[in-house]
Order: sequence, then structure tokens, then C-alpha cells
Amino acid sequence: MTGAFSTRHIGTDAPAQAHMLGALGYDSVDALVERAVPASIHVQPLAQSVLPPAASEAEALAELRGLAALNRPARAMIGLGYYDTLTPSVIQRNVLENPSWYTAYTPYQPEISQGRLEALINFQTMVTDLTGLATANASMLDEATAVVEGMLVARRASKSTSNVFLVDADAFPQTKALLAHRAAALGIELHEIDLSEPVSPPADVDVFGAFVQYPGASGRVWDPSEAIAAVQAQGGRVVVAADLLALTHLRSPGSLGADIAVGTTQRFGVPLGFGGPHAGYMAVRAGLERQLPGRLVGVSQDVAGRPAYRLSLQTREQHIRREKATSNICTAQVLLAVMASMYTVYHGPEGLTAIAADVAGKAALLRDWIVEAGGEVLHDAFFDTIVVAAPGRADAVVATARERGFQLWFRDADSVGISVDETTTVAELHALAQVFGGPEHRAFGFTASSAAGLSALPEDLRREDEFLTHPVFNTHRSETAMMRYLKQLADRDYALDRGMIPLGSCTMKLNAATEMAAVTWPEFSRVHPFAPADDVAGYLVMIEQLESWLAEVTGYDAVSLQPNAGSQGELAGLLAIRGYHHSRGDVHRDVCLIPSSAHGTNAASAVLAGMRVVVVACDESGNVDLDDLRAKIAAHSDALSALMITYPSTHGVYEHDVIDITAAVHEAGGQVYVDGANLNALLGFARFGDLGGDVSHLNLHKTFAIPHGGGGPGVGPVAAKAHLAAFLPSHPLAQRAEHAGGFTFDGGPISAAPYGSASILPISWAYVRMMGADGLRAATGAAVLAANYVAERLRAHFPVLYAGEGGLVAHECILDLRPLKDETGVTVDDVAKRLIDYGFHAPTMSFPVAGTLMVEPTESEDLAELDRFVDAMVAIRAEAAAVAAGEWPASDNPLVNAPHTAESVVVGEWTHAYPRERAVYPVASLVRTKYWPPVRRIDNAYGDRNLVCACPPPEAFA
Amino acid sequence: MTGAFSTRHIGTDAPAQAHMLGALGYDSVDALVERAVPASIHVQPLAQSVLPPAASEAEALAELRGLAALNRPARAMIGLGYYDTLTPSVIQRNVLENPSWYTAYTPYQPEISQGRLEALINFQTMVTDLTGLATANASMLDEATAVVEGMLVARRASKSTSNVFLVDADAFPQTKALLAHRAAALGIELHEIDLSEPVSPPADVDVFGAFVQYPGASGRVWDPSEAIAAVQAQGGRVVVAADLLALTHLRSPGSLGADIAVGTTQRFGVPLGFGGPHAGYMAVRAGLERQLPGRLVGVSQDVAGRPAYRLSLQTREQHIRREKATSNICTAQVLLAVMASMYTVYHGPEGLTAIAADVAGKAALLRDWIVEAGGEVLHDAFFDTIVVAAPGRADAVVATARERGFQLWFRDADSVGISVDETTTVAELHALAQVFGGPEHRAFGFTASSAAGLSALPEDLRREDEFLTHPVFNTHRSETAMMRYLKQLADRDYALDRGMIPLGSCTMKLNAATEMAAVTWPEFSRVHPFAPADDVAGYLVMIEQLESWLAEVTGYDAVSLQPNAGSQGELAGLLAIRGYHHSRGDVHRDVCLIPSSAHGTNAASAVLAGMRVVVVACDESGNVDLDDLRAKIAAHSDALSALMITYPSTHGVYEHDVIDITAAVHEAGGQVYVDGANLNALLGFARFGDLGGDVSHLNLHKTFAIPHGGGGPGVGPVAAKAHLAAFLPSHPLAQRAEHAGGFTFDGGPISAAPYGSASILPISWAYVRMMGADGLRAATGAAVLAANYVAERLRAHFPVLYAGEGGLVAHECILDLRPLKDETGVTVDDVAKRLIDYGFHAPTMSFPVAGTLMVEPTESEDLAELDRFVDAMVAIRAEAAAVAAGEWPASDNPLVNAPHTAESVVVGEWTHAYPRERAVYPVASLVRTKYWPPVRRIDNAYGDRNLVCACPPPEAFA
Repeated sequence: MTGAFSTRHIGTDAPAQAHMLGALGYDSVDALVERAVPASIHVQPLAQSVLPPAASEAEALAELRGLAALNRPARAMIGLGYYDTLTPSVIQRNVLENPSWYTAYTPYQPEISQGRLEALINFQTMVTDLTGLATANASMLDEATAVVEGMLVARRASKSTSNVFLVDADAFPQTKALLAHRAAALGIELHEIDLSEPVSPPADVDVFGAFVQYPGASGRVWDPSEAIAAVQAQGGRVVVAADLLALTHLRSPGSLGADIAVGTTQRFGVPLGFGGPHAGYMAVRAGLERQLPGRLVGVSQDVAGRPAYRLSLQTREQHIRREKATSNICTAQVLLAVMASMYTVYHGPEGLTAIAADVAGKAALLRDWIVEAGGEVLHDAFFDTIVVAAPGRADAVVATARERGFQLWFRDADSVGISVDETTTVAELHALAQVFGGPEHRAFGFTASSAAGLSALPEDLRREDEFLTHPVFNTHRSETAMMRYLKQLADRDYALDRGMIPLGSCTMKLNAATEMAAVTWPEFSRVHPFAPADDVAGYLVMIEQLESWLAEVTGYDAVSLQPNAGSQGELAGLLAIRGYHHSRGDVHRDVCLIPSSAHGTNAASAVLAGMRVVVVACDESGNVDLDDLRAKIAAHSDALSALMITYPSTHGVYEHDVIDITAAVHEAGGQVYVDGANLNALLGFARFGDLGGDVSHLNLHKTFAIPHGGGGPGVGPVAAKAHLAAFLPSHPLAQRAEHAGGFTFDGGPISAAPYGSASILPISWAYVRMMGADGLRAATGAAVLAANYVAERLRAHFPVLYAGEGGLVAHECILDLRPLKDETGVTVDDVAKRLIDYGFHAPTMSFPVAGTLMVEPTESEDLAELDRFVDAMVAIRAEAAAVAAGEWPASDNPLVNAPHTAESVVVGEWTHAYPRERAVYPVASLVRTKYWPPVRRIDNAYGDRNLVCACPPPEAFA
Repeated sequence: MTGAFSTRHIGTDAPAQAHMLGALGYDSVDALVERAVPASIHVQPLAQSVLPPAASEAEALAELRGLAALNRPARAMIGLGYYDTLTPSVIQRNVLENPSWYTAYTPYQPEISQGRLEALINFQTMVTDLTGLATANASMLDEATAVVEGMLVARRASKSTSNVFLVDADAFPQTKALLAHRAAALGIELHEIDLSEPVSPPADVDVFGAFVQYPGASGRVWDPSEAIAAVQAQGGRVVVAADLLALTHLRSPGSLGADIAVGTTQRFGVPLGFGGPHAGYMAVRAGLERQLPGRLVGVSQDVAGRPAYRLSLQTREQHIRREKATSNICTAQVLLAVMASMYTVYHGPEGLTAIAADVAGKAALLRDWIVEAGGEVLHDAFFDTIVVAAPGRADAVVATARERGFQLWFRDADSVGISVDETTTVAELHALAQVFGGPEHRAFGFTASSAAGLSALPEDLRREDEFLTHPVFNTHRSETAMMRYLKQLADRDYALDRGMIPLGSCTMKLNAATEMAAVTWPEFSRVHPFAPADDVAGYLVMIEQLESWLAEVTGYDAVSLQPNAGSQGELAGLLAIRGYHHSRGDVHRDVCLIPSSAHGTNAASAVLAGMRVVVVACDESGNVDLDDLRAKIAAHSDALSALMITYPSTHGVYEHDVIDITAAVHEAGGQVYVDGANLNALLGFARFGDLGGDVSHLNLHKTFAIPHGGGGPGVGPVAAKAHLAAFLPSHPLAQRAEHAGGFTFDGGPISAAPYGSASILPISWAYVRMMGADGLRAATGAAVLAANYVAERLRAHFPVLYAGEGGLVAHECILDLRPLKDETGVTVDDVAKRLIDYGFHAPTMSFPVAGTLMVEPTESEDLAELDRFVDAMVAIRAEAAAVAAGEWPASDNPLVNAPHTAESVVVGEWTHAYPRERAVYPVASLVRTKYWPPVRRIDNAYGDRNLVCACPPPEAFA
């Protein structure tokens, strides 16, 4: 067999690596890495017995097809927030299967992210229009976690000091379970009640808020406005989880008085995918916009005064408010939000309204047929879901339906739920009605009447206001127009298909086409997260294999793939530590030690796990100060719950003392959490478990090749030693018994779906399967070599801020730009934006140290691209020197004016101190490969001062 | 059901159409079309009984999945020029599934086609390097037709006046059949002999050339250099069909003395696809380059002196040399040539060499195992194919193998052929050896030795020279690098995903993503064209359905889908007419009447069908001059074979007299050939068969939504009345008995594969299935409306050259730019190139009338895009007026300097008479959507004078 996949994944071949090693003075990659990694860490090969030998791309695809064939196709009518949907082919092909969209990074550099930022502001506008609220964010991880986040917003915004939150008895079971699990860690008391009863909410209970499912899990549609008003009258805030499709015909949460609306946009063209990824949403009433968790896209302007999109209120992520955090969410579900918003762009308000009416009509027809056959349907008012009484024989009904190819919801022993969706055909309803005694043949043609369906909605809840009136939702009706709109937006963005994205700790490696292939196979995409275990056997096998491989490569005993973002994996890990201490009666252990250099999310997750954060100092090299650690341990010995460290450190260095550090924590009865963000520097050489870690989260979207999707989806599995396994995530609806609660894993749910973002797990599965143990190790070596090569070549121009053994960095390096600023006045921002002119995405700016750039080239870049980057940085340094030398004024030079749009060098008089070609073609090769940023430098402060988070009118761009 | 597909396919919705009809003064689209079409033509709805009601996109996909499931997956080891291959996922995703590649048009506007022209020159370089010849063209339709074309080149280039051509007895059977069929029409005599015998070629036979299969169909590898020299000694020319993969280890045809090399590049990553489309190739020795048929990409320069690619020697297609033509080929197989060339770019010389060695090793291993089991393998020297003796039981062996999942070649009653390929595994060889008595278990590990495989090649035929040394084949080894290279090339081109391509008669309509979906499903793509009928049942059902639908919509009785280009369909139709006359003893009927306005291919096809071309005059409106027609009929009445007409005419008008015309021909005993190029103006309103047509070819890549692929593939089915059905294409290896010769269809083969480019037929199948009869009619109406709207809006600025009833055009209009030129000096070229600056692909230039632009907007463009085009043309007219008014010099204005690259408006002093922004942003909306052409206007004459048809050295671009 020729052409191992690893040789395609790794950018540098043997001659290139020899050249790079020569520059560094090493004979081999192994020699380099073994010098960089402290001797106390045992470098050892991965066990071949667990990881099979590397498969070729064809072999991996064949295995995946085999796994796909084990999933049993069925019509998923279980509902509960998950509905089959028709992904428009034009969106599937041009977004979901297009690297220009899926390999993009989070839009932190807004000047080169205008395409997806526009798509996201479309998303926000779609959500605010349909929910009738003022401001929506750029997506949530899923509906259930959005409800939890909504509860936290309610608590912050409530005037009540109560600790009690009311939960709709007719909420989805997974939402209830997630609320219970998360509330417990935060000391919130939940009261589950039927909010539709006139007596509720009980007047004698003080509450800070309430949660309403609209329509209910049972499908029942009722008017919650009185209940909302009652809670608000007590000073509480109300969260409504609303089905966006239903809202095309039902009064919006905003019009009903809700403060916060949440939900999922899955049914807007995003495949079921056995649970995800999908884009959840959250919208809030005016006044609460600064309480929104997650990412918020806003409109600002560039230096030319043109409207430009950007992320607003960036107090998140690396800027996240640490121990003052109110949410630990970083990632959004950008790729899926783009898809859902484009579904709405393509269908428009008329299209969505018609789809909803069609769904309602089919639901009403099914109800009629079941009633006609003598069945009893519990609620008269419904949209797409009905509950059929089946006293004592619900399981038999569900089983019979399944034999006929329908998956229904076993609601309880006496009733089953059925949800109709866009894909349901009338012929299927006829077949399904037979399960309830309907006739085998019907004398007349089958038709579903939308009018009949809509008449099942209460008259006074019928929506009457307009929505989605912006031109973007009323223009792109033909496939041709839609394809071009998607292309135009993609053209505005910079993704991995254009060049390197050297983001520190974000590991923007190749997302191989073979890895992506299975994601859109129907056997993986049209699968309900609560389908019976026998119908998802292929998924379960794949998940078990991936779990075992991840456990092996990290040195842990158990892995949960449920967390659908790194932040959620982190939280799940800390909750596991909490659960472990509590199980031993150590309920007082609530101190979480976090080094000062840590990513802000660490502290935020600790807070949400109910812990107190104590900061441990770092030395001048960014390493944990062992003395301070010991002092902090001593000061909190009885209360010590955990230490969170990142390895290699957030400074990109292999710390010397990691074994001593973990031992000190263990001695004091604490647990060690190792943040897996930098695993790409270690994989195949050493294992977190062997370093003393008790639990870690991994980022499959970093180390394991899942694309960043322009800012999500992420996947953040949590891995732990055996003693913590029982406290890893469980899920009440999990297909595998050990995950369903009460068995091996019993930590409670962390995501809405039992296996999180299952449909993208084939990507990481394929990555590991095709790399094999040797390939994974080779990738790490190549990544470390690339970082050290870049550091070495740039050292003379920019100080490399931290280094470990032998002056070596790990997989990334921090370039200190503070001396440059002192010397020339040129800032990190100037250099980052100037890199755009050179055809690069900027490295991470000012994290973990202000005034620096952190560069992680990854193993996938080839030598030519590494050199192109280094050459650009050197050239930019020379430009800065020219500024310092007075050749160009400090206020007018190619750096401070960067990035330069095409328009800016073409239109009008050129008055700058440097020529046009210097602005946009500083390097000759750019004439061939030029990427043109669509806007000039964006004014961030303006955007935050003038918060606009919905589509601006077209005139704004005139 | 919401959102019928037709509403996505058709760009103009009801309000837009109402607006357009208002501008034209009609109440409805039907009223417009019925006014435009002469009353003598009966406008009638299509029969619903044959065409099923329109399916939704989801329903069509579900049906296609059902058809796919009817194809039985098997390991195709039949060989004969078709080998399973691994399409690199990065190429599949970023080329085959990317509209930026597949929706591009033929690169007639080279300034906006540099990406695919570069890919094609890579293809040409790959072919010349591997074949060791001087010049290769940009692909042929398939290997068998390339052999025929090679024979014709040999005849033209030979010094011999002989009529005899020698054919290698060890040639592929389909090649032999095609040679026989095509030679018969041209009066060429074929002698089939074993050229490897020392006595051959027989010294007593004068020949103009010979054909050698290398390696032979039997897999045998022998040294043809002596036979080549012997033929050449007589003044003959030798065509060698060579396997490019084998050539990485075998001496090249050039080094063996061949004049011409042909073959297929299918196994370079292009799926089998039940026969196509694939890119054939042809290369010739120095001195024969101007004899090459088809398209040839060359290097020229732009006005700035930068290297730029273009089509060389454009004496083809609309410029085709009519009755002096030596070939009728127009289309190349661009998309497939791009894929094959990128396979080579990705693997490089080392990769190809290793793949070939691996294949040879596996073939040798299979030989060893069969011999070990007591089998007899006929030849000692082979590359990938062996023939096993099976006296009297070949059919049993083939049947047994098939039961085990292997498709072998039933060579004759006594032997079977087996071809190994890149995808074959050693485990499969083990299983296959058991068919020949090999052991069920083997004691030792299986390995194939490349060295052993290569030792099966004759020592003195081992290749020693270098090949593929150009950097492009030695740079893009990582998937990241490859993905970016593909993106960079795509970014240079203008395709339908950017905007309108209003090419007259080329019908650049939407190629919907749903239509494209099935092409890459393995059930359709990994199917050998000579697989047993039972293994391709899904294909056969789909083909029969599509045949019946096409027959219905055209008013014919029988359809053959075999022709894999419009030109081949045309030829097949004329050969059917020839066959019909001959069957009636009318062997003297050989005159083909062709109107002077006809497309050049018409005459070329007639010549290749052995006919004499007689030109019929046209009147000033471009209609056939009925008097001249009658005179020509009278002059040739006994010899009259056929009239070829295009309807609507190539002038874009519904001719009045078509019924009279066809009647006059029939009266004289002639047959009427209706060219289907303009069917998009008629479909659903009238049918060729009802107009008096006896036979037509259709262009599935025009009317039936197959994408143009940047210049191919095309599909050109031939449809005929019942009396001609027997003379439609057959194929000796056809799966359906009626196509296999001697039955219903018995015309002989026109393409290498029985069903031509079968793998893209699902595109047209889906188009018809989703449009339904009403949708097809609505599309035609929208297309005619769009053309008339554009004509009406532009009439005041540019005369519309031809019009029919009511001043109406059909689906396209010809804008006369000659008055503009007289008035202002601005040429058609200037306007066409200036349209690029406005973000458009130019319309057809100077065809059918010099000095004009022919505009076919198609039904897929929406009103906004139509108006954008009209506005651009009006603005350009105003710019021309400014030139005429002396505002800008005739030698320096935005028109004559168009197109403007970004570089040209940025770099250096701006000395033009107009500002930079006028050059590139003549319309404000371009600031957002600008497409930047990569080169300035290209000097065509320079390129033809200095013919360079291989990759220039990188320094050329410095």
C-alpha cells in the first residue's frame, strides 16, 4: 500500500524535517521531543494492542460504511426537541461539505470573518424575529444547556433573592435531568409544577424564575402568559423554551411576556445526527443583552466608516471573567447556526410558515385517524406532537410501531408520544395509524389539510405579527441565488483552505476530506438521539471504539463523549471530582486551585461546579510556582478539592515539575485536573494519566481533527481514572446501560443528548484509525518541530517569551511584541492586521500574555507555508523598523493602516506615505494568491457602545 | 409539500415574471411563447402518463437510493481499459463536488479560466511526460474514440496513399468494434493481425498506419518498436494505446518510436462510473501538433507580458472547419482531466511509480498463486492483467468468481482475464485464487512484492528516463497543500457560482446539488462498464426510464444514451441515416444539406459519416431559404441523404417554415436531422418528432442540467423515429440484449462504453424527475421570457439581430455590435472583456454572426441578475459613447484595456485617461462582490505563433 494517510496529514516530509532539524541542531524528531520533554515524564510508545494499525483512507471508509450499515434506518417520530428535517442540498453541499466554511476559525479577526459573521447576524435576526425578543446570541450548545444558562440569566437578572426555580412539568425529560444536575452544584432548588394550572405558580413560594416549555413535551399548546406574569410579579424572570417552527403560527415568547427564550434550531435543516451538533439559541428582552452568555455578533464600522460585523462584548473565552464568570461557554455552534440561518434565508417567512402549516396538518390528520380508529389523543391543542393513550400497553405500541419502521416516544406505561415533521409523508401516517387500529386500506386519496392542522392551535395564541421581513430572508429563493450568496460570503472569509491559521492552543490542523465523509451519510445523519439501542448499533460500536482509543492515548480508564464542547468537558470533569469527594463524605472540599496563567474558562467552570477558585502564582517562565502551590495547599488543605493545570502549559512549555505538582495535590487529598487543550504537544509521547492526572477533557476539534466550523461545533470528551468513572456523565435516555444512570457512569447529564455531538465523532474516529499509534506520535513530533523551527527562525526578530528544556518550546511559541511596541510604537494589533495583508490569519493575540502573539503552526503545515509565515513576520518587523526610523510616520504606515482592502487602494486619491503596492503586495507572490479582506480595521469600541445585533437595513451598506 | 423543485430551479418567481411580461406586453408566459412559436407548430402538453408527476428533492433522492441499491457491489477485475481506482478524497470533495469547478464553462474566455487552464496544461504535461511525445491535447472523449481519431491523424500524416490500417489483434474488443464501425463510414480498410509476430506487418500490404495496444488486452507486454519501425518504413504512422500507469515502469511510446499515443486516464482517480465520463488522451510526436483533434491548451501572454494560458489553434467548434473538418470533436472531458491531472499532482512521480509497482506486485502474486494451484497463465510478461487458461470452462470460472464477488473477463470459452488495480487487496487475491483451486488457508502472512511484480516486465522494456519533474508534480504532497492549490485555481475562475454565464446555445442553467448527489455514491461510481447485467440492474432501470422520458419529450420512438458528447450524438444520428439508406439499397444517398448558419460541427459530423456537404442558403433573418433548399434538393434528389437543421435556429429564432422544410426533404426521400442544441427553447411546448424530425441528438449538458464541467463532460443522446431505431448505436458488450448488436439497436458503437457516460445520467434523471412535465414546460417558458426581456431592455442600445413572430426571439438573442464598432471603434472583444470587469462571463462572441454577441440567459437566472446584466451592457454602451465623443482616446479607455486585474490598478503609476475606480468598480455593488480576473487581456496570436503546450518553468511567472 502506498501513501499512508499520515504522510498526507503531516505537512513536512522527511527532507523538510531534516532541513528543520538541521536549523535546530537535532538529528531526529524523537531526539528533539525527548530533549524538550522533562526526563521525569516517561516517554513511551502507545500500546498497539488497543489502537489498531493505521488504516488507509479507503480501508477506514470501508469500515465506516460497515458501521453505518449497523444503524437501522427508521422514521424518527420521538420528538422531544429532535425532528427529522430536509437539509436543502444547496446548503449541505456549499456549507456543510465545503472547507471554506467548515475549516474557518472562530471570528476573532472580524476583518477576515465577515462572511460567517453575516450568516450569524442573520441567525440572530431569525431568532429575535421568531421569538419576539430584542437580542439573540450567535447560538448555544443545545436546548437543554440553553435552559440551564437561561436559568442562570434569570437568577442574575431577578429582583428576588430566592434560591428557587420553577420547572414546567411538561418539559423535555433531558432538560429536567440537566437542570437537576446543574442546579445541585449551584445550590439552586428546583420545583417542578404544572404551570398551566390556574393555581400556579404557588403564591406562597418565592422564586427567582421559572421555565416553560412551549409547546410542551406532550405537544400540548397552552397560553403561558398568565403564569409568566405571576412569576414576574414576584420579581422573577421567565425562561421559555420555544419551538421556532411552531412560532411561525404561535404567538412569540416575547409577546407572551417572556424575559428569555431558548431552544434549538435543529429542525431548520440540521440533521438529527444522533443528537448533534445542532445550534441552540437564546434571546432576551431589552435590558438583558449584556447578560447573554456565549457569543454575540454585532454591527460596528471600519475605519472607513463602512458597516462591519464583529463579536460584541468580548468579555468571554480568553477574556472570560474567570472566577467572576457567570457562564463557562466559549464555543458557539457556528457551522450549524449558519446552516439553520441559511435554511431560513432559503425558505423565507412564507416557506417556513408553509412548512409549519404542513406539519400541523399532518399531525391533525394523524390525530383524526387515530381517533377514528377508536384511539384517545390526550390534548386538543397541539402543533406537531400528539400523545396517545395506551393504558398499560405503551411498550407494546412502541414495539409494534418499531417493527413497522417508526420510532415513537415511550412517554410512560400508559401513553406514547408521536411527533410529525417536515419529512413525514401522508403514506407514513396511514401506515402508522394502523398501529392504532386504523384500516389497512383507505377508500379516498390521502390529504393533509394545513387549515385543519392550524385549527388545532388555540385561536388566541395564533401569531399575527410579521417576522423575517429583512431583505436577506426574502431574496435568495432560487438555488442559483442561494449558491451565489453562500459563495459570496465564503469568499469574504479566510479559512484553512487559503493558508495557515497559527492560533495558539487552537490546533488548526488539517480536517481531512476522508474524515468528513461519513458526517453526511444518512445512516449517521438521520438518527434520533433517543432511538432504541438496537437501531443505533453502528453508532454504539464506533463510540465504544473511540472511547477505548482515547482512554489509551491519554492514560485514563474511562471516557465520556457526552460533553459537546471543551467547556462542558471541563465542567463534567470538575463535577466528577465534586461527586467523588461528596461520595466520600468530603462535602467540604470545594477549593479549586488554578494557576494564574490558566485559560479563563478553567475558573469559570470551577465556579459553575460550585467550587471556590484560589489562584496559584506562576514564576517568570510561566510555570507553576511550586512554593506557592505548597503554601496554597497548606492554607486550604481540608478544603482542597482540585488543582487544574494545563500541560504543556498555556505558555507552550513542558513544565519541569509536573510530577511533583500532581504528587503534592494528591498528598493533600486533592484531585488533579489536566486541561487537554495542548494535548497535541504530547500525544504519543506521554499521557496525562501517567503524569498524575485524575481527569481531563480533550478537545476533539483541536487534537483530533474535528474542524472548527468557523467557531463551533466543538467536542470535549472527559476522560478519567477508574476512581472517578462513576462520576462521569450519564444520561437518563442513554442507549448503553452503563451510561443510563445508576450503573458504571452516574454523574448526571452534561449535554442534551446522551452522546453529545455524535454525528461528528466519525471524524475523530477516522483520524485515529488512519493515523494509528505511530502516526499520532509522528504528528506530535512534527507539530513540536514546526513550533521550534518557527521560534528559532523568528527569535532574532521577536523574543520568544518562554522556553523549557534546551531552550525548546512545545507545540507553540509566544512571540513577545512588547519590545517592538516600546521601540517603534507598533502594536500587536498592527502586526496581526498586517499579517492579513500578507495573506495570513493572525496568531492568538495577547493570550496568555498581553502584548504577545502565540503561534501554533501544527503538524499539517508544510515547510513552504512555515517559511512563508516566518518571512512575513520578518518583513513586518522590517516595516516596523522603518516606522521607528522615521521613514513612515507613526500615524500613517502600512502597519497601522492594515488591513488594506482592494477598495482602499483603488478608490480615490492615495495620500499615504507608502505606495499602494506596498500596502497590498508587500511580497511578490501575493499577486497570484491574494486574499482581499472585505473591510478595513474594525472599531471595536464603537460596536460595543452602539450595540446592534440584528441585520442592518440594506441602506446601511450604500 | 412545500417548495416544488421547479421553483428553485427557475430563477424568476411569479411577481418577477409579471414584471417582465409587463415590459413585453403579454399577459402570461404561455401567451408569449405561443406568439413566438409559429402557429403551424402544434404546441401541446407533454404526456403525464410517461413522465411521472414531479418528485420533491427528497423523493428523487430516495428513488435514486433505491436504484443504487439494485446495483450489486462487486470487485471489478474485468480490465479492458477500466480499472477501479482510489479517488483522493481531497480531489473528490474540492473538484468533483465543488460547483466552482463543475459549473464552469469551456475556457473560451481565457482571462477568467486560468485555473482550469492551468489544470489542463498540467494534464497535457502529464501525458507528454508519460508517453514520451511532444504534444498532448487537453483530453479526448474516451480511449476507443481516441484510437479512431488517432487513425485519422495517421491517415492525414501518412505519406502512404493506402486505405489500409492495421489493428493489433490484442486490442480491446470495444476499440476493435468502434474502429470497424467508424472505418466503414470513411472507407478505411482494417486488417487485424498479431503485430508481435516477426512476420508482421506483412510486407506485401501497403498501409497508412497501424494501431498497437500496449500492454495488450490480454495483459501481455511485448516490445512493439520493430513493428512500429516496419510500418513507418512504409510511410505509415503508428498509433499506440498505452496504459499511463504502466508507463511509469515501461518504456514510453515515444521512446519506442510511436507517432501518436492515445488512451484513458480513468485509473488516475476517476471513478469507473459504469463507463464514464473519463478523460481519454492523445499525444503526438513533434511536427504533428497541428493535426491534433480536440482542444489544446497553450501558454501565451497578456498585455502586461505575463504568461497566461489559453486554448491554442482555435480552429474548432464554432470555428470548426466545417466540411474541411478532420474531426468533429468539440467537447473535452475537462472535469475528468482535471481530476486525473490532480491525482498526478497529488501522488507525483514517486507516488505513481509506487502505485504501479504495487499493482504489478499484486498481479504477480496472483499469477504465482494460480500457478501454484495448478493453473496455467498464458503470458510471462505482464503488468496488471493476466489471462488464465480454462479450457472449455471459462464461463464456469467467471460464474464461480462472480458468486464470490469478483467480476472477471470472459475472454473466450477457454480463458479468462483478470486485472489487478490500485484498490485490490492481497486478501482479495487470496480469495480469488481459491476460484482456481488455491488453498482456503495460507500458513504465512500474505505479501505482495513490487520487485517480483516488476520482474514480470521485460528487462529491455523497463523505463529509465525521468518524468513529471516539473515542480507542480513535486510540491503538493500534503492534503493541506493540495486543498489550497485546488482552491487557488478555483479562485482564478469564473463559474456559475459567481454569476450569470449567458452563453448562446450553451444553456448554462442551474446544476442543482440534489441532481449531483448520486454521482459520487459508490453504488454508481464503482461499477465496471462491462459488468454482468444482473450486477447493474439499478443502472439499467434508470437508463430505460431516462430513455423513455427523453423519447416522450422529443416526440421520438427510441433513444440511445451511448454518445458521450453532442458531437458523437450527431455522428451517431447521421450514421443511423446512412445505415437506413444502405439497408434500403440507397447506397448512393450521401448528400447532406446544411444551412449556411449551421454550427460548424454539423458539417464535420457529416464528413465523418461519409457524407458530402452541400450548403443551403439562409435569408437575411437567418432562416433557411426555402427556394434555395428546394433547388438544392432538386439538384441532388437521388443522392439526398439528409438535411441537418437546428430548431430554433442558431440565430435564436423559431423559423416559420420548419414544417414545409421537413416535408420537402421527406418528399425527396431524405431524412431530417434536427440538432437539439436549442431544445431549451421548445421543451414542453413542441417536439422535434412532431416537426418532421427523423433523428436528433440532445445535449444533456445543456437542456438537462448536466454541468459543463469547465468544458466537459457532455452527453449527447441520439433520439430517432422508429424506422431509424435499428441503426442507433449498439455495443458488443452492452448489458441489455437490444443494445448488444443484432437486435433492436444495431448501429454499431459510437463510444467506448455501452451506455457512454453513464455515471452522470442520474443528473438528468433527477432533473426530469423533479421538474415533471409541467416544470419542464415552465422552465422553457421562463427561458424564453428571460431572453425576450433582455432583448427588449437592450434593444435601444444594441440592435437585436434576428427576431421571429411578433418581434420575439426564442431562448437567446443576438446583439449586433457592428454599428457600435462603426460608430465608436469599440469591438465585440472589448465589450466581452469589459463585461468581466463588471462581474460577468461574456456571451458567445461572433457566432453565428461575426461582430455580435449571443445572449442566452436561461431560466435559472433571477430578475436581479438579468437586470444587473442589462445594466452592465447599458453602462458599457455609455462607455463606448464616451470613447466616440472623445472623452477617452480610442487607444486608452476602460473598454480597450479590459479586463483590469487588481495588480494593474494597484502597481505602479496610473497613466490612463480614466481613474482606477472606473476601471474596476464601474458599478458600486462590485465593491462587495468583485471577481478579480487573474490576468489582463491575452494575446492569442502570440500563443499560436509560439506554441507551448506544457507547464512553463516557474521562472516564467517571476
